[in-house]
Amino acid sequence: MLRRFFIPESVAVIGASKHPDKLGFKILKNVVDGGYKGKVYPVNPSAEGDILNLKSYKSISEIPTPPDLAIIVIPARFVPDVAEECGKKGVKGLIVISAGFKEAGEEGKKREEALKEIVKKYGMRMIGPNCLGVIDVVNSLNASFAFDMPPKGKISFITQSGALGTAVLDWAAKEDIGLSKFVSFGNMADVSETDLIADFGEDPETSVILLYMEGVKDGKKFIETARKVALKKPIIMVKSGKSTAGSKAVSSHTGSLAGSDNAYNAALKQSGVIRANSVQELFDYAMAFSCQPVPQGKRVAVVTNAGGPAVMATDAIEAEGLTPAIISEKTKTSLREFLSPAANVHNPVDILGDALADTYGKAMDLVLSEDGVDAVVAILTPQVVTQIPESAEKIADVAHRHKKPVVASFMGGKRIEDGVKVLMKKGIPNYPFPERAVSSIKAMVNYKEWKEKKKGEIQRFDTDRASVEKIIEKIKKSGRKTAGDIEGREILASYGIKTVESFLAKNISECKKYFQKLNCPVVMKLVSPDILHKTEAGGVKVG
Amino acid sequence: MLRRFFIPESVAVIGASKHPDKLGFKILKNVVDGGYKGKVYPVNPSAEGDILNLKSYKSISEIPTPPDLAIIVIPARFVPDVAEECGKKGVKGLIVISAGFKEAGEEGKKREEALKEIVKKYGMRMIGPNCLGVIDVVNSLNASFAFDMPPKGKISFITQSGALGTAVLDWAAKEDIGLSKFVSFGNMADVSETDLIADFGEDPETSVILLYMEGVKDGKKFIETARKVALKKPIIMVKSGKSTAGSKAVSSHTGSLAGSDNAYNAALKQSGVIRANSVQELFDYAMAFSCQPVPQGKRVAVVTNAGGPAVMATDAIEAEGLTPAIISEKTKTSLREFLSPAANVHNPVDILGDALADTYGKAMDLVLSEDGVDAVVAILTPQVVTQIPESAEKIADVAHRHKKPVVASFMGGKRIEDGVKVLMKKGIPNYPFPERAVSSIKAMVNYKEWKEKKKGEIQRFDTDRASVEKIIEKIKKSGRKTAGDIEGREILASYGIKTVESFLAKNISECKKYFQKLNCPVVMKLVSPDILHKTEAGGVKVG
Repeated sequence: MLRRFFIPESVAVIGASKHPDKLGFKILKNVVDGGYKGKVYPVNPSAEGDILNLKSYKSISEIPTPPDLAIIVIPARFVPDVAEECGKKGVKGLIVISAGFKEAGEEGKKREEALKEIVKKYGMRMIGPNCLGVIDVVNSLNASFAFDMPPKGKISFITQSGALGTAVLDWAAKEDIGLSKFVSFGNMADVSETDLIADFGEDPETSVILLYMEGVKDGKKFIETARKVALKKPIIMVKSGKSTAGSKAVSSHTGSLAGSDNAYNAALKQSGVIRANSVQELFDYAMAFSCQPVPQGKRVAVVTNAGGPAVMATDAIEAEGLTPAIISEKTKTSLREFLSPAANVHNPVDILGDALADTYGKAMDLVLSEDGVDAVVAILTPQVVTQIPESAEKIADVAHRHKKPVVASFMGGKRIEDGVKVLMKKGIPNYPFPERAVSSIKAMVNYKEWKEKKKGEIQRFDTDRASVEKIIEKIKKSGRKTAGDIEGREILASYGIKTVESFLAKNISECKKYFQKLNCPVVMKLVSPDILHKTEAGGVKVG
Repeated sequence: MLRRFFIPESVAVIGASKHPDKLGFKILKNVVDGGYKGKVYPVNPSAEGDILNLKSYKSISEIPTPPDLAIIVIPARFVPDVAEECGKKGVKGLIVISAGFKEAGEEGKKREEALKEIVKKYGMRMIGPNCLGVIDVVNSLNASFAFDMPPKGKISFITQSGALGTAVLDWAAKEDIGLSKFVSFGNMADVSETDLIADFGEDPETSVILLYMEGVKDGKKFIETARKVALKKPIIMVKSGKSTAGSKAVSSHTGSLAGSDNAYNAALKQSGVIRANSVQELFDYAMAFSCQPVPQGKRVAVVTNAGGPAVMATDAIEAEGLTPAIISEKTKTSLREFLSPAANVHNPVDILGDALADTYGKAMDLVLSEDGVDAVVAILTPQVVTQIPESAEKIADVAHRHKKPVVASFMGGKRIEDGVKVLMKKGIPNYPFPERAVSSIKAMVNYKEWKEKKKGEIQRFDTDRASVEKIIEKIKKSGRKTAGDIEGREILASYGIKTVESFLAKNISECKKYFQKLNCPVVMKLVSPDILHKTEAGGVKVG
């Protein structure tokens, strides 16, 4: 369990500094400003007096009680000794921010190995080295040198790239996307992405797990763990280094092996990990998963005050392999009762440009009540009389009365901002373009389908392995690369799979014999190792 | 020429109102607030005194001099008579905002036909009916009921969906995307998308033409015009109604026929129109085209302070069919002179997280000077010491010294805002995610390649058409669906295409005769209408 990193009772910042330009100052300040409730100990051999009104210590050994967690931000060459001290003191977790390890040549590599040994010896766990740190928004711990605490939410984000982390945190704050935990794990010397997903799988404060990865440390373990966790909550991942050039870039960035992208694709799909193609998609999907129920099927309806965007949404529904929902005659009649005659009561349901908030509410309610609808995209553009935040309120309130996912695409700029805020606050994800709304529903449908399939068991056949091997050996010896008709049947039989009864007739009299024995219409095939395409060669006769 | 709509000397607003809730008020106010310099005449039969400090008229005939342009916003049933009045008065252009025409059943359809006749009779031109109107940002004319004037720029946007128009205008204002002209053409009763692209092709204030279309009015004319205009400036188009369900939605939205999407794809590609799959892509591409030169080739380099995003950019480069540029040893040596030893001087060039603005400037300059580089993506994430607006300045200044396109991906939220503003002001398009930056370069490369191809002439063959027809007729008569070897050669010969000399030998002695005649190694093929796959049937012998 990695609880020590997220809810430690006390934290030491080793390398804490009084100088605002130093990372050691920024990190200590982040811990304090983040609102951390436990004890904080600044540690610095040259420290005198207080730092940020906290009593500072010359070494970890001077601290009266052992801190649960130590954040280390000192030059790399001192890190192993300080880690040793931490181990002796009884520190449980280390976050090593310092760079100068595996990523920095032969010497750094040795240093990292030494550090790993120390961590292991004392039964500690370590995140890093060479990382941005850890943020637990729910427990108000900012153990990183990222600038701000992101807004609070249910999404936990794990990143192999610290620099990407800084961008994502800044972006999440602006877009008001709530996070639960953030981990930049750097060189992954100890705690790996697999440890983290296992931990977040058990974390009640996390409902969606996001990863940015360039290479997975232990593929088999990752897949096994992911498969279990994915049954409980969605895991969404950007796996970069997909291309030849990209995988070369990976090896000079994090030193990972990017691996074959096809293999990744297959493995991720099988283990229920949803793959996103960009960080934009990663968060698009995460927003839907974090606040909306997963749809029961793939029939999607659109409710809109704008025709063009509804056409684009409908195109996207079909392009994504979803089904445009069919609105029943009963619902159509009910819609007609309050909509203008020019409105479209088929799907997309176009309530027209002069629709007010109440119209949105009523139309959404009817469409969501429809049995043939599994998910709804609510589209709005800011037209002359459009009641923007009011419509957002209605859409969100109606959505919460039904157990079906609703995603929105309020399109525009400043005029829709207040509406988007209402949506986000009320748990309706908003996408600036309808295609992205639809794509997020598709991700949810994929996840649902994977989970359904997982419920069925994999069928295993009792195999007579030895006899199959014998057949294949025989084929190999004869120098052939393909199995003949008879051999193929024998292999299938070894797996208990039944085929049509057949016999090899070596001459015309044998042929007659079998024909009399069967006494029914037969197919006669030419058998020769030289002729693969029997039909083309006229070697197949039916009847 | 449609100049009458964009730089009229005087404008009448027919249906102008004193009531702030009425469209007739909003439009008049937009004309005034937009800063239009010409004469403005409010017209309303029940008008008394001034509206917005402008003398109002009871009818168009009362106005002392004929206005160039009349914006009509009165109930549909009065529109034909008022149009007649306008024609008599000598008005040149009509923008008919009013709805209640083709889109509103049989009666509306007849009304629209009548209106078209009147427009034709008086040699007027008309935009609409049933539209949002027209904005000419450069000439400060807001002849629409959209809320605000968008920022000024070089992009002109034509939309079949008015509601989408309101969203795009609002969004452009927020994202600071400059527009030149905006036209919502509604039912397209007279002025069509083809007229508009022809006009914008000649407009010095327009450098990129964008279209949102659900169906093209006259495909052949559109393609012919687009092909000519595309040679001068890029045309980028969202053609929605791609899917079966989407095209049904189109017919209930604008009443257009969406048409076969494959046919559209082929026609657009051939005519050099760049197809965008969403409005997001439409403007992503437009930003690059409107302020950056088109690349001379497809070799793309990345300069970054963040490893992860650079890997994603590199993946995108390969996925888009572009080529990751190779940095020469000479440039690598120069880069090493001022970069930290841990920096990556290959492509992606990673100047590391502590890179300052000057480092960006120097690295960009070297990479842009490299012969093997056709375009550069500059990536930045907001790390501890990153100088954001300063780096933007350096990147933009260096970019303008080279004649190669530079696009940026400053990733983040509030912290990067000032940097993005600098970039946009200095003509460097910024994309929040690197994949979108790369995709925009790809659009430019496609355009460049189409233009290059257009320069080459299409090769036409002198065909002996009659003899080809005779051969095909013969094949058909014999009930076959494929041409034989000899027949194929005859057809190729009719087009003047040379093939290997060959003869049909009907028996062994003919065979010998030809063999002696040729006196060189030959290929012997079996010729029989029953055997298509000669090789499989052993009917081909070589040597």
